[in-house]
Amino acid sequence: MSNLDLIAKMAGFSKATVSRVLNQSPHVSQETRNKILSIMKELDYVPNRNAISLSKGQTMQIGISTEGINNLMLPFLNGFVEIASQYGYQTIIYTSGGDAKKELQPFEDLRRKRVDALVIITSVNDPSLLRSYCKYGPIVSWQRMDQPDISSVAMDQYEGYWLALEHLIEKGYNRIANAFGRPNSINTHNRMRAYADMMGKHHLTVSPKWSFSSVYTIRDGEQVVRDLLEHKDDLPDAILCANDYVAAGALCEARRQQLKVPEDLAIVGFDNTELAHTMGITSIHNPIAAQAQNAFYLLLLQLLDTEVELEILQFSLIQRFTT
Amino acid sequence: MSNLDLIAKMAGFSKATVSRVLNQSPHVSQETRNKILSIMKELDYVPNRNAISLSKGQTMQIGISTEGINNLMLPFLNGFVEIASQYGYQTIIYTSGGDAKKELQPFEDLRRKRVDALVIITSVNDPSLLRSYCKYGPIVSWQRMDQPDISSVAMDQYEGYWLALEHLIEKGYNRIANAFGRPNSINTHNRMRAYADMMGKHHLTVSPKWSFSSVYTIRDGEQVVRDLLEHKDDLPDAILCANDYVAAGALCEARRQQLKVPEDLAIVGFDNTELAHTMGITSIHNPIAAQAQNAFYLLLLQLLDTEVELEILQFSLIQRFTT
Repeated sequence: MSNLDLIAKMAGFSKATVSRVLNQSPHVSQETRNKILSIMKELDYVPNRNAISLSKGQTMQIGISTEGINNLMLPFLNGFVEIASQYGYQTIIYTSGGDAKKELQPFEDLRRKRVDALVIITSVNDPSLLRSYCKYGPIVSWQRMDQPDISSVAMDQYEGYWLALEHLIEKGYNRIANAFGRPNSINTHNRMRAYADMMGKHHLTVSPKWSFSSVYTIRDGEQVVRDLLEHKDDLPDAILCANDYVAAGALCEARRQQLKVPEDLAIVGFDNTELAHTMGITSIHNPIAAQAQNAFYLLLLQLLDTEVELEILQFSLIQRFTT
Repeated sequence: MSNLDLIAKMAGFSKATVSRVLNQSPHVSQETRNKILSIMKELDYVPNRNAISLSKGQTMQIGISTEGINNLMLPFLNGFVEIASQYGYQTIIYTSGGDAKKELQPFEDLRRKRVDALVIITSVNDPSLLRSYCKYGPIVSWQRMDQPDISSVAMDQYEGYWLALEHLIEKGYNRIANAFGRPNSINTHNRMRAYADMMGKHHLTVSPKWSFSSVYTIRDGEQVVRDLLEHKDDLPDAILCANDYVAAGALCEARRQQLKVPEDLAIVGFDNTELAHTMGITSIHNPIAAQAQNAFYLLLLQLLDTEVELEILQFSLIQRFTT
């Protein structure tokens, strides 16, 4: 029985909780902390963080590999930086600009023990090549990569999209347009599947004029509304947007074009950002900060002799004035 | 005379232009590029990028040091990553979470030649300590640091704020409130100075109830409007916001509170983002991408035997519907 096991047993808490106290995590109540610390004192247990780190050759640095940084990634990055920092780890973000060779830099740094672990945000290399670096240290991914050794904190976008579609149909909308993001990503594919299934289930009209992809920004959202208005005899009555920025652009442009929202056109965003809140846009809450926390815990699980409890990740719909 | 000097002289272009062709910069016309390449051919000049890099011990990596990442930094980060990438450099962002010890990591990496150069976005250490690392490689800063060896691409916020104030006064507003950002930064200090000078010049009312600081986000902007409305007998007729996100929050909240914009309350943002564009918010255009480009050129100047032409950085006012 390890020291941690013994302390956990005596204190009546899980080993994960004892680890959290040792790691000075804020997610432990003062009462629990005091009880565990008093038992450590009783047992004369001296945690030596630095000694542990050095003996394991840890750098206390975690790398993040990404092509670039955009608004949508910020909640994940910030969530990760914060939780890692609470545990004493520094986060270093490697940008590749989409260059396959540069993208290997953080993986090479993992091999050379310059970082302890890696998180993949987006990548351009063959996933099986990236996977081959798992033997040098733990790697997790934000998106699903379908590689056995790389855990992912991805969520099934089918479920989130389904929630939004269900809400629109309940509200009586039945000509629903889509503004999708990356055309070939697994996420978009799952959103498309949810749309096809829901339209089939309710025998609703589907028009190729109502489907857009590679739509990411406020200006892209404005353009979608202008494009829809080119076919005035075939207008949708609702539009589901790739993210809240797209929804914000669509909302402002719709109003400029004298469309009433939600009477003429309902708009739903994704991610439930502050922007959706202030502009009153109905949005799908996407627990991105919790994904970041889980990503860190999955790495910690492999880095330290510790147990972790993962957050349950669930989409929810926040209704506002655009539906 | 170096090879570059000779080519420049023969081609009739500056050495900087020749360097750009060698570095495959997109900022050279096809005609110029062809002329320079033909002269290189004539002279049998073989540029060997890798050989140069290796002989100088370059890693082709540039570090960025920052406490964390927020929306406001994104245009700078993305601008930098892009221009650096065009020149073959990879950008690595070191987050410190405000921890002074972790903040030294990129500086130590500069000393150990793991990165070729550094950009400081925000920092918590004593600037003179950071400056002591300049002997190991070039360092530039986004903000003014008042350290002789650390060049900065900072702009004088006094000028930008002055433009906004001038515009409001011309439009007949004379009870102007301020929502400032970081209370102790040089930027905020200069904005405050512009405000005091302009109010003095026009003998306008200044009320302590109209001054807010540590205002950064959409929700902060909403709160400012609610706070102002607690003193209905002493309302300002205009508010100048730290950034466009604050302005967006203030605009939406003002409308929810039945204030007419711009009749009852004019709103001006800062940075001229897509958000200001789509919501019709008057804003001060801040050439952040050009600052990022200049930051890179200032590093390149020291890294390579090259000349650079810096962009001229200038604020401008973009009038929309909130004034």
